[in-house]
Amino acid sequence: MASSLLPLVAMVAVALLGAEAYNTSVGTVAGKLNVHLVPHSHDDVGWLKTVDQYFVGSNNSIQGACVMNTLDSVVDALAKDPARKFVFVEQAFFQRWWAEKSPTIQAIVRKLVDSGQLEFINGGWCMHDEAAVHYIDMIDQTTLGHRVIKKQFNKTPRAGWQIDPFGHSAVQGYLLGAELGFDSMHFARIDYQDRAKRKGDKGLEVIWRGSRTFGSSSQIFTNAFPVHYSPPDGFGFEVFDDFVPVQDDMMLFDYNVEQRVNDFVAAAIKQANVTRTNHIMWTMGDDFNYQYAESWFRNMDRLIHYVNKDGRVHALYSTPSIYTDAKHASNESWPLKYDDYFPYADSTNAYWTGYFTSRPTFKRYVRMLSGYYLAARQLEFLVGRSSLGLFTSSLEDPLGIAQHHDAVSGTAKQHTTDDYSKRLAIGASQVEKGVNTALTCLTSSKGTCMSSATKFSQCQLLNISYCPSTEEGISAKSLVIVVYNPLAWERSDFVRVPVNDAHLVVKTSDGTSLVSQLVEVDNVTANLRKLYVKAYLGITPDKPPKYWLVFEASVPPMGWNTYFISKSTGTGSDGTGYVSTMVSPSKDTIEVGAGPLKMSFSSSSGQLKRMFNSISGVDLPIQQSYLWYGSSTGDSSDSQASGAYIFRPNGATPTILSRSVPLKVIHGPLVDEVHQQFSSWVYQVTRLYKDKEHAEVEYTIGPIPVDDGIGKEVVTRLTANMVTNSTFYTDSNGRDFLKRVRNHRDDWDLQVTQPVAGNYYPVNQGIYVADGKYELSVLVDHAVGASSIQDGQIEVMLHRRILNDDSRGVLEPLDEVVCVDERCDGLVARATYYINVNKQGQGAHWRRTYGQQIYSPFLVAFAHEDERGWKSNNIAKASMIEANYSLPDNVAIITLQNLDDGTTLLRLAHLFQAGEDTQYSVIAKVELRKLFGKRTIKELTETSLSANQKKSDMKKLDWRVVADTKNEPAPLKGGPVESHALVVELGPMEIRTFLLKF
Amino acid sequence: MASSLLPLVAMVAVALLGAEAYNTSVGTVAGKLNVHLVPHSHDDVGWLKTVDQYFVGSNNSIQGACVMNTLDSVVDALAKDPARKFVFVEQAFFQRWWAEKSPTIQAIVRKLVDSGQLEFINGGWCMHDEAAVHYIDMIDQTTLGHRVIKKQFNKTPRAGWQIDPFGHSAVQGYLLGAELGFDSMHFARIDYQDRAKRKGDKGLEVIWRGSRTFGSSSQIFTNAFPVHYSPPDGFGFEVFDDFVPVQDDMMLFDYNVEQRVNDFVAAAIKQANVTRTNHIMWTMGDDFNYQYAESWFRNMDRLIHYVNKDGRVHALYSTPSIYTDAKHASNESWPLKYDDYFPYADSTNAYWTGYFTSRPTFKRYVRMLSGYYLAARQLEFLVGRSSLGLFTSSLEDPLGIAQHHDAVSGTAKQHTTDDYSKRLAIGASQVEKGVNTALTCLTSSKGTCMSSATKFSQCQLLNISYCPSTEEGISAKSLVIVVYNPLAWERSDFVRVPVNDAHLVVKTSDGTSLVSQLVEVDNVTANLRKLYVKAYLGITPDKPPKYWLVFEASVPPMGWNTYFISKSTGTGSDGTGYVSTMVSPSKDTIEVGAGPLKMSFSSSSGQLKRMFNSISGVDLPIQQSYLWYGSSTGDSSDSQASGAYIFRPNGATPTILSRSVPLKVIHGPLVDEVHQQFSSWVYQVTRLYKDKEHAEVEYTIGPIPVDDGIGKEVVTRLTANMVTNSTFYTDSNGRDFLKRVRNHRDDWDLQVTQPVAGNYYPVNQGIYVADGKYELSVLVDHAVGASSIQDGQIEVMLHRRILNDDSRGVLEPLDEVVCVDERCDGLVARATYYINVNKQGQGAHWRRTYGQQIYSPFLVAFAHEDERGWKSNNIAKASMIEANYSLPDNVAIITLQNLDDGTTLLRLAHLFQAGEDTQYSVIAKVELRKLFGKRTIKELTETSLSANQKKSDMKKLDWRVVADTKNEPAPLKGGPVESHALVVELGPMEIRTFLLKF
Repeated sequence: MASSLLPLVAMVAVALLGAEAYNTSVGTVAGKLNVHLVPHSHDDVGWLKTVDQYFVGSNNSIQGACVMNTLDSVVDALAKDPARKFVFVEQAFFQRWWAEKSPTIQAIVRKLVDSGQLEFINGGWCMHDEAAVHYIDMIDQTTLGHRVIKKQFNKTPRAGWQIDPFGHSAVQGYLLGAELGFDSMHFARIDYQDRAKRKGDKGLEVIWRGSRTFGSSSQIFTNAFPVHYSPPDGFGFEVFDDFVPVQDDMMLFDYNVEQRVNDFVAAAIKQANVTRTNHIMWTMGDDFNYQYAESWFRNMDRLIHYVNKDGRVHALYSTPSIYTDAKHASNESWPLKYDDYFPYADSTNAYWTGYFTSRPTFKRYVRMLSGYYLAARQLEFLVGRSSLGLFTSSLEDPLGIAQHHDAVSGTAKQHTTDDYSKRLAIGASQVEKGVNTALTCLTSSKGTCMSSATKFSQCQLLNISYCPSTEEGISAKSLVIVVYNPLAWERSDFVRVPVNDAHLVVKTSDGTSLVSQLVEVDNVTANLRKLYVKAYLGITPDKPPKYWLVFEASVPPMGWNTYFISKSTGTGSDGTGYVSTMVSPSKDTIEVGAGPLKMSFSSSSGQLKRMFNSISGVDLPIQQSYLWYGSSTGDSSDSQASGAYIFRPNGATPTILSRSVPLKVIHGPLVDEVHQQFSSWVYQVTRLYKDKEHAEVEYTIGPIPVDDGIGKEVVTRLTANMVTNSTFYTDSNGRDFLKRVRNHRDDWDLQVTQPVAGNYYPVNQGIYVADGKYELSVLVDHAVGASSIQDGQIEVMLHRRILNDDSRGVLEPLDEVVCVDERCDGLVARATYYINVNKQGQGAHWRRTYGQQIYSPFLVAFAHEDERGWKSNNIAKASMIEANYSLPDNVAIITLQNLDDGTTLLRLAHLFQAGEDTQYSVIAKVELRKLFGKRTIKELTETSLSANQKKSDMKKLDWRVVADTKNEPAPLKGGPVESHALVVELGPMEIRTFLLKF
Repeated sequence: MASSLLPLVAMVAVALLGAEAYNTSVGTVAGKLNVHLVPHSHDDVGWLKTVDQYFVGSNNSIQGACVMNTLDSVVDALAKDPARKFVFVEQAFFQRWWAEKSPTIQAIVRKLVDSGQLEFINGGWCMHDEAAVHYIDMIDQTTLGHRVIKKQFNKTPRAGWQIDPFGHSAVQGYLLGAELGFDSMHFARIDYQDRAKRKGDKGLEVIWRGSRTFGSSSQIFTNAFPVHYSPPDGFGFEVFDDFVPVQDDMMLFDYNVEQRVNDFVAAAIKQANVTRTNHIMWTMGDDFNYQYAESWFRNMDRLIHYVNKDGRVHALYSTPSIYTDAKHASNESWPLKYDDYFPYADSTNAYWTGYFTSRPTFKRYVRMLSGYYLAARQLEFLVGRSSLGLFTSSLEDPLGIAQHHDAVSGTAKQHTTDDYSKRLAIGASQVEKGVNTALTCLTSSKGTCMSSATKFSQCQLLNISYCPSTEEGISAKSLVIVVYNPLAWERSDFVRVPVNDAHLVVKTSDGTSLVSQLVEVDNVTANLRKLYVKAYLGITPDKPPKYWLVFEASVPPMGWNTYFISKSTGTGSDGTGYVSTMVSPSKDTIEVGAGPLKMSFSSSSGQLKRMFNSISGVDLPIQQSYLWYGSSTGDSSDSQASGAYIFRPNGATPTILSRSVPLKVIHGPLVDEVHQQFSSWVYQVTRLYKDKEHAEVEYTIGPIPVDDGIGKEVVTRLTANMVTNSTFYTDSNGRDFLKRVRNHRDDWDLQVTQPVAGNYYPVNQGIYVADGKYELSVLVDHAVGASSIQDGQIEVMLHRRILNDDSRGVLEPLDEVVCVDERCDGLVARATYYINVNKQGQGAHWRRTYGQQIYSPFLVAFAHEDERGWKSNNIAKASMIEANYSLPDNVAIITLQNLDDGTTLLRLAHLFQAGEDTQYSVIAKVELRKLFGKRTIKELTETSLSANQKKSDMKKLDWRVVADTKNEPAPLKGGPVESHALVVELGPMEIRTFLLKF
């Protein structure tokens, strides 16, 4: 038989060949279709397993994944053949691995990085989420990664690689893309309708101008993959996977070189048909792949060799940078893309808009620590490079990890989410200690700066009225409250602390008594306190405090002020302390408001009816309600269920919680409060403070009942009498506001399949609607999903409890519980949003400046000290910056941080978009000399956003675009900082990053 | 919280440590328990996947396994750290891998082997089975591996590593152990009762004297593992497996060094409690492990480091050789072990005695090709090192692979078994071509030696009467039959070829007409031929031949003779050709027999009644029947089913096929045949030849019906009127006969749970019983399971068809079918066994000499030529050896093979055990000069059994044993071969191996 002759022939072939005989050291070639093979592994920084478990490869019954294997084996494989390449992304993993490696291995890796075989792309600590993250966190975690890459390898990543996040934000494209110095951005997930259209007109690859303010000056070449971030079918080679290896030994019965080459050519041509230029990219990897890298490279070596021998197409090892250079060299014109890629749907009923809200308490915890971390780094800077060290670094890794697209997104398994929380809690606890010491140093007039001298404490659970320091009875010693203001503006805000004494007086350091107000702690809060203190701290707390003590603190920019709480000497009120009074409704309508903003409620139904601002004259009829969507569990036409990722309401009209709400109104000199019990599991307190033109709404939602077997997705809805033309505005990562039009996409003719879920957008700072007369704005204190489902409406999803999994891998229903003594209840979410109504064109100032205050609340620390003694040893009030100077309202310091190399990192952000506000959307100026007061700036270097290269070294590729109008006005931008003047100018939305030496 | 301090501490630990800081380069230490970690991967040469699939890692949906990964990644891991070690076994895999490696990698591997980091153990082509393999195949496949290791690395394996085979044979222990120069033997599978006892008295490790003939002179240190060949629970570290990695980074939340060290110490102490000396072995690996070796070594590095730091026990990287040396150095006394480790049971109802018979047709194919390969190598030698090359090497790899313990054992999946068969068929087809050419050369009187001149053909399907060369009508040209005799004895045997002409005459080369006999081809054979020729060759054969033409061929030792078949010239019989006659029973008893042996059958029942030998006078009443055991599918007490491995009858009395058998008796001058149809699916032909004292029984079994849902295990049973005292004898791999006592084990007090399955033993050559007066012997032509369930009985299992899997991994029922045109029927098995009755003490001669003839039948080739022309150009009859010389009856040439290095490998085997036969169990002499006739031996080197070292270089470790009587007589052994005389002496059972240069 003929086949029996094969073996002898093959013996020769093998003898001639040998492993290293594969010719793979080839670049691109002209005149052929170039298939860029980009070897990569997508390594989630926590998802089904914790980040530790992924790193070491434990808990493999859940998922066989070990990042050590990937890195160890990739380095081995690359070292074997200089033609091989690999890209690595997540520094949270790489740095752990690097730290364990011997100098020998480190030297090998350095060579691989130098030669470009191993290329870091994205390069942040994780591949952050793009919907539920704040831009400051995005910058921080990217900076963390980029700076360590720079330090270890003197490299600056060139490519954005957000392959997995579930939709893509404008801020990602222009800020965390172009402004990092990236030449390109790559990802897999865009709307399925969008993708279909883009495949049809070869529009998957675009020039993305994410910023309406910056336009072409912050554009980036963007590559949305035609299918996913895995290789074409049949070209994955993960060890243990069931693939068909390239078998080129003719002694093998399954010798298949020609067949595999034909498969390759067919897959390449298929992709070329939807791609501009003769360069296509194959993403050669998948989740936690390259557990044994040789399995991949062995097959890719052969594919490249035999495909190129075949000659129909050309294959090469490549990276996103090489690919982008090839695209750029092609001189092709690219379609333009504006705004963002939200929301993301992967099929008719699968809108990934649930995760905008999933795990709301975790999202809030992350956001709270983000602001805290910013403030703590300021204090670390202020206290100077003392023996305290860089104590805030305890939070950089946990916060970096928390930005991962399965962390703050709420799409990790419960045990992984618990692990994130634990890491944050440990980090926060260490930073808190550092902050306490730092405050001791800063406030000491004698320069006492020892952790043993620290008497401060802080209260992370203030929102549920748990604060041992303030609850403690006040006797001879006063309760000393130091309030730090991380903003560079003078600022007044209300401080609320739980106390047990009705007879207290609040004094400033000069002895002036302040007006204070006592508000009884409500039962809902008292119960929360009991359960959650036990659940989170493991201790059974004392009986709840009786009151909230409220007073207004005024703190200089980037400085502190001290308040003293002591027993009032007289009996009864001493003219400053007020106990709140209950208001009994007597009329049909109750009007509430301690300041210029008044809200009226129906006495009978308890419902909000109207908002009125006595200063601006704004007067708007408005209702507010709570509703829930029933979560779909799939139906006969589509088994898709609602879940951690996906919001799919079951189609029923959402259930309104109550049309008649028990109402309790509390009145006082500083704040009026409206307590509304919408149901047994939804409680709301609206606070209208003296001097504030907005309403603060604190809601307590949960345990969401699921006894009826129905998952519930709870929203609050404001319904105003406004004609809003289907239009609303939501922020991009807390930065730019983007215009949204209901049931519409600019990029394609939207086929509406999910009229609710398909109109949800991620919100980090706020959402607003406008009707030409008024703007109705809502700001939030953490990431949520929100929409405007009807004109005049704003709808914010606040909590979700779902009994099904939505089949996107997490394999758990999003059914959060809190357990004490083996009893578990649905998780209760408490947070705050803020409502304001402004005249058209006036809303931006509030949204921007108050938005910054929400992100950066006062940092409050407590001590019990003899008031006189304290004053003699401490500085009660101070500011970092020069007296009488403060930053303008349109600028914030978003980073001030001592780095480990002795420099200080400063980031200034203009807070307004172009055209957003007539007064503030202009060039702003920051005088650094005044800002840093007594310190002298010796050296100032402006850098890229992630501070890994000089601004002047950043080069941008020029791209041709299809139908560019070229008419966009040049954006306003600040000029160079002159070293004698040291004045930084910032145009609208501009962020400028500096490394300083003092 | 306290745990929050961990990270900083750990940072330091990690910085100090680094990967290569683990201290693992340690040997054994005195005074402590030494835990020898032996890293290994058990790589089946085919089982659930084919050997190719295992090598390249395809078909991973069946099993994630890729030997390339193991070897590639092990080499990487070893190269990283000189302390690491690994043992590798299967050369069938290693050599494929090696051939693909670049010189660079080969150089690295050579260094690893030189330094002892990579050690070859066992070292054969595969890890052969021990029950269903013939010792010649065991030697061949081991030699193949050992010689290539010697050539590439100049190494001789020191350890036997039969970790997985399902029981262990005496021949393995002494011949494929001690005689290879091994110092130790290691395996996992021994009877569960045996293991329990041995654990109790620390008797798992023994000095094994497998040979009763050789005793202590062929003993070996043998290590039966306490559990299995995997590591202790929790110490396997295969990538993707769910294990707990050693986590020594204190930044990891799951830091666990102390816990893992404690686990290690506990597991070590547990094993130490059942082990002599303070050395224990941990087998660090499992099936197809080390897919990414670093995953193992990374964890073992840490274990060794931290366990030794802990100090309670001592851990080290080791190999079986190092372990054995440590055991030896301990000067401990070891228990003695005789005979073998069969049968193997792993629990009460799980006797692994089914596989002795599983896949009988595959077993027979392997055995047939084994004999053919031996003969072909002789012809290759005889024809000389001509341009034919080493054509027999086409079979060395397939035959080597086929000896694997999941190949010939019948325990591979069907598709894998098909792959084995395909490899054998391709190899056999190539060797057949070579043999045809070699015969052309040898028989040519003019030295014509070109493959184009070849006119010979052979018929592999003769047993089902398919042979186009002989079926072809004979006209002017004669049918020339060349008969080659691979034995070194003059030999007469009957040749049977299918023909279509009733008027043929058979002549010798000198023109003498021979008596011939025509026997009609029966319908069973005709039907088989139709189905199987189509199934195996894909062609629809002509109508079946009418007759078998039978004649007796006489062939000189290691030589050939030529017979000419032509049309008989006269009409009717010319006095030599007989057509057989049918005998019609006229009496109650029919006596049959063309020679000295007579058998009588009942006319009424058709049953055998008696055997009578007119020469010896032996006269024995005997019955024969066919029965089947119903296969258990598990029962309420134990779900264990009968399957490919395990024989578990369902407990019902075995069903006797028929008590009344249709009988057809055929009579003729050369042979009498008795045809019995036991059922529609069991057909038997008993042949009694002129001059033969035994009966040849050819059975045809199948398709075994399973319509009743019952799996069936078919046996034939001989029941003689003999008192055999529960005793019977079975061979060990076709070599030594071992005494078996029903329901008894020498080594422990057997608890009988399976009175049938637990008394089955593997048989490769034969089984016999004796009662002091007679010996009743059965010889077989392939591996079977057999027993004696009642005194006077011999029972042989011939075929099995089972509908359940027996839960030992293969995950397929043993339900063999053959398919034609999408119709599949149960597989039919046709084979032959031989019965003889001798006087007590006389049976050995027949068993040994006729056994050798069964293994090495005539090799028969056909041509159609003009008789006169042929004779003028060809040598009709010749012998390799000197005229009038032949080997004595007690010696066989078991290997005569040209090697690729120009030497010739010769193995001589004494065929008798000590004391087996008064005449033949003595020193035998072979005169090499006479044996090789005209050739001159220039150089002769005696070597170890596998020819990888000089006999004189072999060193043996001396071992102390418990209660050694020291009274055993020294075995008879041949002395050194004097170079002038060149006479080789062989003592009983002695095998001597030589490398010759001519």
